[in-house]
Amino acid sequence: MPVSGRKKTRAVSVGGVRIGGGEPVVVQSMTSTDTRNVRATVGQIHRLEKAGCEIVRVAVPDLTAARAIDGIRRKISIPVIADIHFDYHLALAAISAGADGIRVNPGNISREKLRIVAAAARENGTAVRLGVNAGSLEKDIRRGLGTGAEALVESAMRGIALMEEAGVKSLKISLKSSDVPTMIDAYRKISARTDCPLHLGVTEAGTLIQSCIKSSLGIGSLLYEGIGDTIRVSITGDPVREVGVAYGILRALGIRSVGPEIVSCPTCGRCEIDLSRLVNKIEKKLAGSRKHLKIALMGCVVNGPGEAADADIGIAGGRGAGVLFRKGKPVRKVREEDFIEVLMGEIDNWK
Amino acid sequence: MPVSGRKKTRAVSVGGVRIGGGEPVVVQSMTSTDTRNVRATVGQIHRLEKAGCEIVRVAVPDLTAARAIDGIRRKISIPVIADIHFDYHLALAAISAGADGIRVNPGNISREKLRIVAAAARENGTAVRLGVNAGSLEKDIRRGLGTGAEALVESAMRGIALMEEAGVKSLKISLKSSDVPTMIDAYRKISARTDCPLHLGVTEAGTLIQSCIKSSLGIGSLLYEGIGDTIRVSITGDPVREVGVAYGILRALGIRSVGPEIVSCPTCGRCEIDLSRLVNKIEKKLAGSRKHLKIALMGCVVNGPGEAADADIGIAGGRGAGVLFRKGKPVRKVREEDFIEVLMGEIDNWK
Repeated sequence: MPVSGRKKTRAVSVGGVRIGGGEPVVVQSMTSTDTRNVRATVGQIHRLEKAGCEIVRVAVPDLTAARAIDGIRRKISIPVIADIHFDYHLALAAISAGADGIRVNPGNISREKLRIVAAAARENGTAVRLGVNAGSLEKDIRRGLGTGAEALVESAMRGIALMEEAGVKSLKISLKSSDVPTMIDAYRKISARTDCPLHLGVTEAGTLIQSCIKSSLGIGSLLYEGIGDTIRVSITGDPVREVGVAYGILRALGIRSVGPEIVSCPTCGRCEIDLSRLVNKIEKKLAGSRKHLKIALMGCVVNGPGEAADADIGIAGGRGAGVLFRKGKPVRKVREEDFIEVLMGEIDNWK
Repeated sequence: MPVSGRKKTRAVSVGGVRIGGGEPVVVQSMTSTDTRNVRATVGQIHRLEKAGCEIVRVAVPDLTAARAIDGIRRKISIPVIADIHFDYHLALAAISAGADGIRVNPGNISREKLRIVAAAARENGTAVRLGVNAGSLEKDIRRGLGTGAEALVESAMRGIALMEEAGVKSLKISLKSSDVPTMIDAYRKISARTDCPLHLGVTEAGTLIQSCIKSSLGIGSLLYEGIGDTIRVSITGDPVREVGVAYGILRALGIRSVGPEIVSCPTCGRCEIDLSRLVNKIEKKLAGSRKHLKIALMGCVVNGPGEAADADIGIAGGRGAGVLFRKGKPVRKVREEDFIEVLMGEIDNWK
């Protein structure tokens, strides 16, 4: 879907990164290190940056963590968001420490304290994300509306009114649920009611495969409808993988073209080459590459030539050999034992 | 999305399995073995059956493979589809060998030959899937319309007319592309023009993670709109994983509740227990389980109690310990070293 098909939101800034207002969808992640351990946190952020993470969030469970943000920021080159729950003092400390943005949860900080936080954010030009989460809604909302889409939207609308009254300029909204249909429904509803940029995510999405499925369904459906300005895929485990999945979603929908796309067949009884091995090797060699090109690795003559013709570089396999394609045109026959060397040569020389 | 929200298609039968007409969405896969090797193929199908595969397709590259279907069918308990390309004799041989269905590709078998196949299928009560694929479209369609959604739909509409004229009763349609937006667009268009049941899939979707993303986006978006009667996730590698991902998509959308759903947080700097290890262990223990229940494994007190309260069984972790939840109610405190034993006991005793 072209950018022009996306819902227009107002543009905001988080550090040097613009979100909304027709800007490309921004990819975020969150560290899993102890934020007080500056060295470990910076190390993980460097790995995230390398993978293409554009904004990073860190947990702020206490004042030491809030104060650590200053030291972390000096050593990295992407904006940092402080993740705040329960205690508004932590938000104020994170703002003082120079956090580019804070995420506050309106479900566990009172309105009175949120107003104090909003005033400090406005004064310091700190971005604010209102991070509504089905697992931690305001008690009265939970009692009256449960934990479904209506409840998430009610929490967000209250928070937006409060932040706008307080004059916060850079405001983003998220409404996360671990239930995909609830999350889709909530974002559709809020999108119709505000022009604040939306941060999309399925919360507590689980381990890699489970999260790939839930995040692609939830984040992807909304992006495909034109909703969403920044995304975070949540995976139990190494956050670097969150970034890869996020770009995979954007690439598959044609929203952002970052990294190689490998088209490969599922190797049925027709397959005459060791395709799984080939694809896994090529994937491993290209891990972390941000170069965008479409590579077709196909095991037989049914769809092989057709897919290879639509790709930038392709191999259509036959018995112990294959035809190399470049920009959709067959170039020459290659022996199976030379596939990897030939393909990597083509990829390295691309553009 | 409830079944009532799904587009009504006509019901067809493939062996003993009903597809369309409001039946639950059927999960398919395809073997990667050499079909002529009956023992290996049957072995793989047994693993697929155990994972929940409801219809299996086998490649039929030659007459020996077609004839092997008889022996394969005798040893398995789900319907078999013969995957046919190029040579209509193979379709006729597969029908004679008792295939429950055949998949023909209108892009590589002439209309004249397709009519002969259709007549044989009608006489034998064999189901037919018209499997249109962007990688192998009819030459004149490719020349006139390219390989986009319009081209896929044109190929399918021609094929449907031919099959219906020939009196084929059990007809299904697929329009696969390796490009997700093309595939979504094509299925939406064909869905508006026919009431034949639709078999959804993203073709050549790549290895596990890539395919999880593309299949969830493509298959999932359509299912969520109410389109699609049977699905196949295509993964380069072991097909058993295709079945797990397929059920993951259906479960996440609330379309079919098969297998456990694990809600787990991404372990930020707040996490006070070794959650990744816990989740991976529980996932491994539950691999292949078809028992449906929602298990929340949460690392801290932000969303932990909320998610645990929405789950069938849950642990909300704190420092070196956690609270066990059952049917949304806190039951007792559990030490971290006892998490797995206690959780598995709860899961085994469930219902």
